[in-house]
Amino acid sequence: MNNFIFYSPTEFAFGKDTEELTGKLVKKYKGTKVLVHFGGGSVKKSGLLNKAEDSLKAEKIDYILLGGAKPNPINALVYEGITLCREEKIDFILAVGGGSAIDSAKAIAAGVLYHGDFWDFFERKAEIKEALPVGAVLTIPAAGSEGSSNTVITQELSKRKLGTGAPALRPVFSILNPIYTYSLPPFQTACGIADMMAHILERYFTQTTGVEISDRLCEGILLTIINQGPIVFKEPENYNARSNIMWAGTVAHNGTCGVGRVEDWASHGLEHELSALYDVAHGAGLAVIFPAWMKYVYQENVSLFAQYANRVWGVEVSEDKEAMALKGIDATKEFFASIGLPTNFIQLGAKKSDIDKLISNLAVNCGGSIGSFKKLSMEDAKAIYEIACQ
Amino acid sequence: MNNFIFYSPTEFAFGKDTEELTGKLVKKYKGTKVLVHFGGGSVKKSGLLNKAEDSLKAEKIDYILLGGAKPNPINALVYEGITLCREEKIDFILAVGGGSAIDSAKAIAAGVLYHGDFWDFFERKAEIKEALPVGAVLTIPAAGSEGSSNTVITQELSKRKLGTGAPALRPVFSILNPIYTYSLPPFQTACGIADMMAHILERYFTQTTGVEISDRLCEGILLTIINQGPIVFKEPENYNARSNIMWAGTVAHNGTCGVGRVEDWASHGLEHELSALYDVAHGAGLAVIFPAWMKYVYQENVSLFAQYANRVWGVEVSEDKEAMALKGIDATKEFFASIGLPTNFIQLGAKKSDIDKLISNLAVNCGGSIGSFKKLSMEDAKAIYEIACQ
Repeated sequence: MNNFIFYSPTEFAFGKDTEELTGKLVKKYKGTKVLVHFGGGSVKKSGLLNKAEDSLKAEKIDYILLGGAKPNPINALVYEGITLCREEKIDFILAVGGGSAIDSAKAIAAGVLYHGDFWDFFERKAEIKEALPVGAVLTIPAAGSEGSSNTVITQELSKRKLGTGAPALRPVFSILNPIYTYSLPPFQTACGIADMMAHILERYFTQTTGVEISDRLCEGILLTIINQGPIVFKEPENYNARSNIMWAGTVAHNGTCGVGRVEDWASHGLEHELSALYDVAHGAGLAVIFPAWMKYVYQENVSLFAQYANRVWGVEVSEDKEAMALKGIDATKEFFASIGLPTNFIQLGAKKSDIDKLISNLAVNCGGSIGSFKKLSMEDAKAIYEIACQ
Repeated sequence: MNNFIFYSPTEFAFGKDTEELTGKLVKKYKGTKVLVHFGGGSVKKSGLLNKAEDSLKAEKIDYILLGGAKPNPINALVYEGITLCREEKIDFILAVGGGSAIDSAKAIAAGVLYHGDFWDFFERKAEIKEALPVGAVLTIPAAGSEGSSNTVITQELSKRKLGTGAPALRPVFSILNPIYTYSLPPFQTACGIADMMAHILERYFTQTTGVEISDRLCEGILLTIINQGPIVFKEPENYNARSNIMWAGTVAHNGTCGVGRVEDWASHGLEHELSALYDVAHGAGLAVIFPAWMKYVYQENVSLFAQYANRVWGVEVSEDKEAMALKGIDATKEFFASIGLPTNFIQLGAKKSDIDKLISNLAVNCGGSIGSFKKLSMEDAKAIYEIACQ
């Protein structure tokens, strides 16, 4: 087990009617003038935005609205938010929505207090040392951004999708009411499930040994998602199933699963090129990439893949660990397919003929190699994209 | 699943040499004059106290020492600490040791800022609204106090052992270096294992339904403890095994396992009377009480006990859930015995003839009933003590 810091100071308020705590929590964390940042019409239609606003009003907290965050959030809106915050002397950013609204809010929060171009943070030209406090009212369990210190933004013009992170970006509070996930369309629910599973798998597959505690935590969350996920599709208004999925999405990404182990993150890097180029849903891209990555790398640690197959997918223990590993990979792919996700390039809407372009973008963004479970060269990456075509 | 708040803001630094971060962390959390609170000679012998002091000196942080914390920490030392802190204008308390030193430090931290008798907090006559910040350098994985907002203190004269809690008591940081647990004697290691298992089981056995995510997290941590525990006894200097046990003890009690469910805590209440009366180790008392409690209550939710038996102890699924449940309970008791713990009153050094006294003390301390999985009257409690005699 490696040394680690575990620091997850976000205050999570989970359950029915918790959106009514918005004003009180903003006040607790010293917000006096708030930018309420959201996406499209869904938070208006559901009434959630109204409730959040009412809760701010009840505490006499001043606020302004900025909508327009969308999947694969873009830099233009971040610039707009930064300008608005400076003009209006905003001291707290409240994101109401999914990972996109929260990621965009985080980028704005860091950008407001930085005198250069906020994109510097994403190009590793500057480090985020401070940010306005961010709170979140979550509507889509997926990205885990409500409990993480990361953000991913796409530069529209260049189609570069880059991530950055800093302790200052971790939301001071996050409100999660599973009822607001009832209306998520099945495809978006499925994408969320793939995203949170990927967050666990990026940590699970490691060469670090002696980490049973985090192995077991990863497996427990995966098992929950695999059991509760199908219930959500059959009964979209099943409160307990939606609750289990929602909290799974948070603990998948708030650090709980990664303690003491080297994490991988190659699949996220490979996927970001897909969603940057085609503007496909991140979760859908991950459902295509992850099984392909697994097929390419499993021989680097067959025992761990066999353990995964047995503990997560119930594959019977046998002496042929390679066969076990392959069954676990197939089960992963079949699960993604069973919840309506694409599992290859064609189904995703990606083109084999674009692989060279994907690789040249990836090379720029990752600096020539990616991942740690197996350190991947750009040739390895190309081979994985090719497996993903099948 | 019930509504919940999950808020675990302690910064954990885990691994080799992390005690060298002590000074930097005290500084980060604004400590300028520190009370270093510890137990007996073990932290001197191991050199840990010296290292913590060196680290404070390196940051030019002023400090004074207060030793003497012992298992089932007593109120007299808390009064001494409070007086010392006021005289010396202490603004930060650093506990170096196990749960006893940390619990004692927390009580001092709350008492310093309160003008009445700190024991009021334990008798529910006053609420803890503020406390000096507490940091911890942990040496004994067991109590989970390094990541919890609770403290338990024994009033020596009355032999009352009471607990209290408040957000302000949660350590701002905790340092965990598994190497300092190498020298723990086997019995103390075993007591720690029983204590952390009990922290999970108090949460696991609930009547709340639809909580698979926390079921699975509980099971994962229990499985880790059950697998890694025996390694620690065979190889006391196995770094990975000690690491897994140490982190398991923290996540068993930092809130991770209890989300969305009503917790029980009857067994802890029943045990506190044993360790108050006989001054036995808390973990040893729990090893005696928990299986007895399980036997008395399992019929209140046979399915959950059957699930426990299957997922944690590998008991084969069968239609006879009661038989499965009983096998799970037996396995729990056998595990405690296998690591050298007492599993009945005689082995613990408790007397059947004292049961009436235990019950009359318990009645005062718990107000006439205890627990929630099955709400126990004092007659129920008596029956459990009687089972524990067998």
